[in-house]
Amino acid sequence: MGYDGLELACWGDHFEVDRALADHGYAKGRRELLERHGLGCWALGAHLVGQAVCDPIDARHRAILPPEVWGDGDPEGVRGRAADRMKDTARAAAAFGVTVVTGFTGSSIWHQLYSFPPNDWAEIERGYEDFAERWGPIIDVFDAEGVRFALEVHPTEIAYDLVTTRKTLDAIGRREGFGINLDPSHFIPQLLDPVPFAMEFADRIYNVHVKDSKVLADGRRSILGSHIDFGEADRGWTFVSPGHGDVDFESLFRALNRIGYQGPLAVEWEDSGMDREWGAADAAAFLRRTDFAPSSLAFDAAFQKSP
Amino acid sequence: MGYDGLELACWGDHFEVDRALADHGYAKGRRELLERHGLGCWALGAHLVGQAVCDPIDARHRAILPPEVWGDGDPEGVRGRAADRMKDTARAAAAFGVTVVTGFTGSSIWHQLYSFPPNDWAEIERGYEDFAERWGPIIDVFDAEGVRFALEVHPTEIAYDLVTTRKTLDAIGRREGFGINLDPSHFIPQLLDPVPFAMEFADRIYNVHVKDSKVLADGRRSILGSHIDFGEADRGWTFVSPGHGDVDFESLFRALNRIGYQGPLAVEWEDSGMDREWGAADAAAFLRRTDFAPSSLAFDAAFQKSP
Amino acid sequence: MGYDGLELACWGDHFEVDRALADHGYAKGRRELLERHGLGCWALGAHLVGQAVCDPIDARHRAILPPEVWGDGDPEGVRGRAADRMKDTARAAAAFGVTVVTGFTGSSIWHQLYSFPPNDWAEIERGYEDFAERWGPIIDVFDAEGVRFALEVHPTEIAYDLVTTRKTLDAIGRREGFGINLDPSHFIPQLLDPVPFAMEFADRIYNVHVKDSKVLADGRRSILGSHIDFGEADRGWTFVSPGHGDVDFESLFRALNRIGYQGPLAVEWEDSGMDREWGAADAAAFLRRTDFAPSSLAFDAAFQKSP
Amino acid sequence: MGYDGLELACWGDHFEVDRALADHGYAKGRRELLERHGLGCWALGAHLVGQAVCDPIDARHRAILPPEVWGDGDPEGVRGRAADRMKDTARAAAAFGVTVVTGFTGSSIWHQLYSFPPNDWAEIERGYEDFAERWGPIIDVFDAEGVRFALEVHPTEIAYDLVTTRKTLDAIGRREGFGINLDPSHFIPQLLDPVPFAMEFADRIYNVHVKDSKVLADGRRSILGSHIDFGEADRGWTFVSPGHGDVDFESLFRALNRIGYQGPLAVEWEDSGMDREWGAADAAAFLRRTDFAPSSLAFDAAFQKSP
Amino acid sequence: MGYDGLELACWGDHFEVDRALADHGYAKGRRELLERHGLGCWALGAHLVGQAVCDPIDARHRAILPPEVWGDGDPEGVRGRAADRMKDTARAAAAFGVTVVTGFTGSSIWHQLYSFPPNDWAEIERGYEDFAERWGPIIDVFDAEGVRFALEVHPTEIAYDLVTTRKTLDAIGRREGFGINLDPSHFIPQLLDPVPFAMEFADRIYNVHVKDSKVLADGRRSILGSHIDFGEADRGWTFVSPGHGDVDFESLFRALNRIGYQGPLAVEWEDSGMDREWGAADAAAFLRRTDFAPSSLAFDAAFQKSP
Amino acid sequence: MGYDGLELACWGDHFEVDRALADHGYAKGRRELLERHGLGCWALGAHLVGQAVCDPIDARHRAILPPEVWGDGDPEGVRGRAADRMKDTARAAAAFGVTVVTGFTGSSIWHQLYSFPPNDWAEIERGYEDFAERWGPIIDVFDAEGVRFALEVHPTEIAYDLVTTRKTLDAIGRREGFGINLDPSHFIPQLLDPVPFAMEFADRIYNVHVKDSKVLADGRRSILGSHIDFGEADRGWTFVSPGHGDVDFESLFRALNRIGYQGPLAVEWEDSGMDREWGAADAAAFLRRTDFAPSSLAFDAAFQKSP
Repeated sequence: MGYDGLELACWGDHFEVDRALADHGYAKGRRELLERHGLGCWALGAHLVGQAVCDPIDARHRAILPPEVWGDGDPEGVRGRAADRMKDTARAAAAFGVTVVTGFTGSSIWHQLYSFPPNDWAEIERGYEDFAERWGPIIDVFDAEGVRFALEVHPTEIAYDLVTTRKTLDAIGRREGFGINLDPSHFIPQLLDPVPFAMEFADRIYNVHVKDSKVLADGRRSILGSHIDFGEADRGWTFVSPGHGDVDFESLFRALNRIGYQGPLAVEWEDSGMDREWGAADAAAFLRRTDFAPSSLAFDAAFQKSP
Repeated sequence: MGYDGLELACWGDHFEVDRALADHGYAKGRRELLERHGLGCWALGAHLVGQAVCDPIDARHRAILPPEVWGDGDPEGVRGRAADRMKDTARAAAAFGVTVVTGFTGSSIWHQLYSFPPNDWAEIERGYEDFAERWGPIIDVFDAEGVRFALEVHPTEIAYDLVTTRKTLDAIGRREGFGINLDPSHFIPQLLDPVPFAMEFADRIYNVHVKDSKVLADGRRSILGSHIDFGEADRGWTFVSPGHGDVDFESLFRALNRIGYQGPLAVEWEDSGMDREWGAADAAAFLRRTDFAPSSLAFDAAFQKSP
Repeated sequence: MGYDGLELACWGDHFEVDRALADHGYAKGRRELLERHGLGCWALGAHLVGQAVCDPIDARHRAILPPEVWGDGDPEGVRGRAADRMKDTARAAAAFGVTVVTGFTGSSIWHQLYSFPPNDWAEIERGYEDFAERWGPIIDVFDAEGVRFALEVHPTEIAYDLVTTRKTLDAIGRREGFGINLDPSHFIPQLLDPVPFAMEFADRIYNVHVKDSKVLADGRRSILGSHIDFGEADRGWTFVSPGHGDVDFESLFRALNRIGYQGPLAVEWEDSGMDREWGAADAAAFLRRTDFAPSSLAFDAAFQKSP
Repeated sequence: MGYDGLELACWGDHFEVDRALADHGYAKGRRELLERHGLGCWALGAHLVGQAVCDPIDARHRAILPPEVWGDGDPEGVRGRAADRMKDTARAAAAFGVTVVTGFTGSSIWHQLYSFPPNDWAEIERGYEDFAERWGPIIDVFDAEGVRFALEVHPTEIAYDLVTTRKTLDAIGRREGFGINLDPSHFIPQLLDPVPFAMEFADRIYNVHVKDSKVLADGRRSILGSHIDFGEADRGWTFVSPGHGDVDFESLFRALNRIGYQGPLAVEWEDSGMDREWGAADAAAFLRRTDFAPSSLAFDAAFQKSP
Repeated sequence: MGYDGLELACWGDHFEVDRALADHGYAKGRRELLERHGLGCWALGAHLVGQAVCDPIDARHRAILPPEVWGDGDPEGVRGRAADRMKDTARAAAAFGVTVVTGFTGSSIWHQLYSFPPNDWAEIERGYEDFAERWGPIIDVFDAEGVRFALEVHPTEIAYDLVTTRKTLDAIGRREGFGINLDPSHFIPQLLDPVPFAMEFADRIYNVHVKDSKVLADGRRSILGSHIDFGEADRGWTFVSPGHGDVDFESLFRALNRIGYQGPLAVEWEDSGMDREWGAADAAAFLRRTDFAPSSLAFDAAFQKSP
Repeated sequence: MGYDGLELACWGDHFEVDRALADHGYAKGRRELLERHGLGCWALGAHLVGQAVCDPIDARHRAILPPEVWGDGDPEGVRGRAADRMKDTARAAAAFGVTVVTGFTGSSIWHQLYSFPPNDWAEIERGYEDFAERWGPIIDVFDAEGVRFALEVHPTEIAYDLVTTRKTLDAIGRREGFGINLDPSHFIPQLLDPVPFAMEFADRIYNVHVKDSKVLADGRRSILGSHIDFGEADRGWTFVSPGHGDVDFESLFRALNRIGYQGPLAVEWEDSGMDREWGAADAAAFLRRTDFAPSSLAFDAAFQKSP
């Protein structure tokens, strides 16, 4: 279909962290499987477990976590086991031979997004400290393994825009082991332009997702999403196949070239109104005609659903 | 300053619900005090207690609730006592002689706004049912007292846009005792136009707040607010004095005239960048030159802070 | 209320053409009445009779014509009597002491606006010739009386935009007796800017109406008007009080100053959503603060209804 | 060239209704001719005769009607014969094996589009009744033959926008035999969005034309068309090849998918500034890359000229 | 007319630098004259002489320089005498009792604005060095006198936008004696927003001019000005009275409040299409209703012409 | 790569004017070389020498002129030798067999673009006369040789927009030997639309360059270019590969077809952010799918740098 590789997800049967650590042949087998199809792999995706590291835990986490991480569901226990699993993910990535793990961090303060009842702003600052306390030891392991973590800047995470990314990087001491997976589809519904973001955080962008989204606001649809699923007719924005939304990919790719980004462009495909096969080919063709400086294209197969 | 009346808040010392019920002279005294200043009153505001009826309770609620409603802080206990206090508010409003109480409802599902971890959509529907179960008995008392409740449609509440207002009104059976306080300042940062809202819910608009807000998005500031306070330079939107923001009040007032709205226009003033005295006079002058069909103007003195 | 004069309409009891010609004292009496109120008059309005000069005649004309002009309603007879009355209007204007008569021309081709069934374009050209044949003799009388006719460029007339005004002026030989009454409210719903129009036809602008209109198109309302009355909620545009619509009066007045226009600015007030008294005062105040080079302000009292 | 079929017009020699009824072999022969070229046919087009059913008749109709329908040109006689021919068209369609006839209705009130002289609004309502009286018996025959009529919503017809379509469908009792041929090119110059139209009338959309148009208004060109032909430099809008104008086909096709539309997408090609052969291929390619859910493509060969 | 003071120009007979230095009573007399009219003065304007410090000298300079500064017109001589006069201006300002002198710097590289023939970029950098070499000694005198120089950022000067202001401040070592006179009217025709400029250079903004300008580009008028005078109909932009152009003064004043600016707001009035008296009163009224935090208003009487 | 020919530049080794005149075989050899590659040539480019005809001469000219034209660098001498070389270019063009020479004129007044110190407007008019005096004799030779000169309307030239083109053509008597090379990329950063330009000067457009540019103004970047090189991140506009910028080529080509333009469309490629080979192919493909009426495509190989 025109892709050079895959970004493998650490859930389902794409890439199993525990098997990779327990079984020396597993990682090698995965690599060989890819090579037989002429595919490379430059990053693992560890979004689901990462989400549980800082989040207040509720029933929704149970549905996305491995049973052994969920355990008895006690929130602090879940957070601790998720942190351990992230350390293992760094080890597995090293064993597999990739130097970037993308993922989420969760956030203890996300749910206080809209300040009513009025926020205690000192508590908000505490949220960044909580993040740093929980992720510092994880990044220590990443450093030891020679792997870097790339947070997908995204609503529900500790960093979701320019302000919060600045605070997040500051909280963790701007250490090199903690960087960014830039996915522009999460910028559009915040009315953000990914270009100044890429320019400001140039030295921390370790991975890029090619995903698109579209604002559908017409005065009747809320940009906040109306508590209805992606693809519902009344939503104020939704995800669409790359090139069919509001992301200005040409400007983004020019910015990435300008900052010297050398990593992969991984298509993350989600479009509730388009045939998936049609879309995967369409997205690859779109990238080939838009990416002036040939990059490696990866397909992020795991993300059939949001994020 | 050019105002005809006040919308009295049921907190601080503006209007005390428990005293109004315990002391027959209290309500009369409040009314006389207003009349001595040539002021009327057409609505009470009961936002803070109302918020606790459906919300998951956390430390922020303690700061806005009367001690006797907070009690020991056990969430279900807080919610129950808040519901009881709302019933008392209806009784006090009747004693005071107003037929509308404005306020908030809270919401058990607001914090699941952004569906990650992915929402269980049946749980979202459960949130509307929870609202109906908790507010149905409250509205029974409102009906008995001849008073109507007007929910300020607002993020963090069960209804914050057109979709959620439809679901909310449906959940409670479209009963007449439960209506809307239309505050257009909460529509702007959702990219919503209050005019089609007013047209659709014409027969349920019981009160109107004149408050303004301004989108400041420039590609670098998130419409989601960045977890920073109103008035911070990097916020993507903020509240401003009426006429200084993005609300098209002329179109809104034309729509209100078209639907036959006869209630007050209550200025709710909040602008972190303007002197409060200067602004109150400026707002009254703005309304006098914009409201073609002379309405009663009220000043919502309690809302020095958001909402 | 802040007006210096009136533009008197030649219908109802504002100014009666036949009495002015029959009774030497009538015109003088009208003038004295105005002067007693401190009002001037710089133009007569003769829209209704003028409309019948070129139009295909139908039942709607009966409602706007004097009985003696309608006669038996035979179309060609009506057109002829209307032309005669227009000549008398020039004579009456001279007697009354004004040098401009504003009005409509009608059009034999307006109803072929949208070319389906497909127009025979030679027939369209015939429409301009028909206009010239009928209005040439009328303008001869205007010339003889030292009065000029100012067509209000307007849909349903032979000229309604730049293209048709060029053709109309050409058809009648660009003679000086036939000019333009510029009313910008008819430009807005055609997506026209009155400024380039004023610049192009600078030497033929004999009168200006200050009237405003607003496009309400939101993708659901047609700019064509939906065959419903002005002020209906679903119309794609409507007339509004000056300063409340889409006309950029500051730019228009700057253009009028640039071309040396010295005539009156006559407020023609129509706004289905505003109190008429409130609006008349508001319009005068609007003009006083927008017209940098003090002009004479007139109020076009007859036009309570469209045009 | 990439088309799967044709929408055959009932004029010229594409499809002759009278021969189809008189000669049993004619319809079969037409079908075989198409099949030899690998083409299907899902609808007949009967715009010209349909136009005469409700219109005031003038010389322009003579040019588009068969001589036997025009007859002596007496308006009521023409209208009656046109109605009879529409009934025959339903019968011929059944014989030919298609279940949809697209076309126009004409309108007795279209020429009163701009209300001057002021409309008698009761007369306007009479226009919808006139339509229902004339088309009811025609649709009775369509029902009997198992064929549905699809009005192309279009200026000069009884329905041309959302408001008039609502009134039209109501007038004829929302009966299933009378539906819509959605052609988005007629929405653009009215500043209408075809998407909310498609959503509102989802169950009555029986055919779709893929035709495009472009607004060229620059403040100097009227959206009303200036009584000049399509393609003239000064026109405020014109028709263009699909994908070269202002229709957002991607959004329209997403809406059609959402409402479950299963019918053909028939290219109706008109572009005064493009080579016809170049354009037909370009249009097919445009559709292939824009229509995510493969549909049958038809080329509406008869429409070399507007509509 | 509503002004609190004047910004006195150092040319014509407003404020004569040489007399102020030669005659001890002159400065005192000027001050007393202002006080008799109830006016203050917070800054002197020294634009004309300043322009000659760095400029290539041509005939146009002769028209704006005092004869003794022009001398024999030899360019390097003119530049040297202009620099000396600027030093004297600092001394005179101190004598007069103001701490800010506003003005221009000129530029040795402005005329290479559009890089054709292609610029030698090292030569461009040389231009900033030339500026620093010439202005360093002048600012030494300013420092010694306790006066600060405020460059009006403006095309034809060494700094005219954000990029060039950064380079200019860097070239002169970001010393405190050299700051900025912010005049937003010079930002509009560059498509610049004065707000981010004010935020970036917050600590160097020593004076603010309230002047407005308007972009008139319509595809036919060049933003570069067409080598025709301000006010010509075909120019792509022009200066207008404050509040009548494209400057968003409310946002600018909010930004100035945010950065703690305490200086005067000096109206510089220029509008070729408005009566000057009418405009001066209109501008003062505009400021009174827009400046939320009462500031001192000055009228910059000397600038009847650009700048 | 999809090109039909080249526009040869008269510098470097593309086409040497002096050799063409001195050596009868040179021009023939050039033509044969092109034909061996299947390429045509319809115009010579003589921008660099032409620039020196009217310009004030500085060091930048030395870098772009042949040594024998520069000579001793005395300005008037340079201008005279440049004029002579332009005459020779006409002769060489005739020898080579092309009828159009594109190029620049220079301008004695360009550097007075921004009127400060205030322009003496009579001096500006003198600039057009200077142009006519210098270019009249050159065009005499063009006429004699049957070749036409096409000025590339461009900042730094005597004509760069509509106003200055009118004045330039008037100054030289609207003679046929002096026309225009329309390059739309120079219109975009002036906020000009090339379409009304093409319509106004239809009979003088002798050559068209297909080059694109993009406005990058975001309130922080000046449209004036900040005295930094094309491609710098902070510039307010830049050149980009055709189809990647703000030129609406479809509308331009429709206008060229309308005015009957029959000449070549010569791609002039400049994009600091795109691989040159990738871009040349992309540009040819872009033109093939945008040019409805097949034109000859040329590649303007010399212009690797601005202009």
